[in-house]
Amino acid sequence: MMVLIAYDVNTENNEGKTRLRKVAKACVDHGQRVQNSVFECLLDPAQFQLLKNTLEKIVNAQTDSLRYYFLGSNWKNRVEHFGAKPAYNPEGFIMV
Amino acid sequence: MMVLIAYDVNTENNEGKTRLRKVAKACVDHGQRVQNSVFECLLDPAQFQLLKNTLEKIVNAQTDSLRYYFLGSNWKNRVEHFGAKPAYNPEGFIMV
Repeated sequence: MMVLIAYDVNTENNEGKTRLRKVAKACVDHGQRVQNSVFECLLDPAQFQLLKNTLEKIVNAQTDSLRYYFLGSNWKNRVEHFGAKPAYNPEGFIMV
Repeated sequence: MMVLIAYDVNTENNEGKTRLRKVAKACVDHGQRVQNSVFECLLDPAQFQLLKNTLEKIVNAQTDSLRYYFLGSNWKNRVEHFGAKPAYNPEGFIMV
């Protein structure tokens, strides 16, 4: 399933900067970065649950935010892009 | 229809900072900010087209990125949140 993961991490202090790096690293390992803090991840439910658990252990729930959007099987028709950093298809080929 | 709008604006120079402010302002007028650069907007197709035109005139297509995700009528079941900044329902009441 295609899951869009968007995050805001409060980087006012060094702990925040460390959390931000860790969140990005966890997402990079599981999906395609489409913006600085937005990833599209093609995951099965078990993989999603593992990634979710990982992310929710990293972030500070008082100051940071994670949002997951389940785009469904028809996800390619749900996305439009304008400008820099064109999307790459996580199934393996470049989308134009 | 529910449209998720996510943007990355390159703020290396003052023009970029101005673009970022303008993009945020245009989105604030049309939806609910759920993260720093992520908005959920309940729009009809004409309103979406107007907002899209506005945003695409503001950004620099070489350096900035806009992504639109059409979440469909079943959008409430497509969203999960963890951490700070809980979501507000753009239809008017607070989601818990």
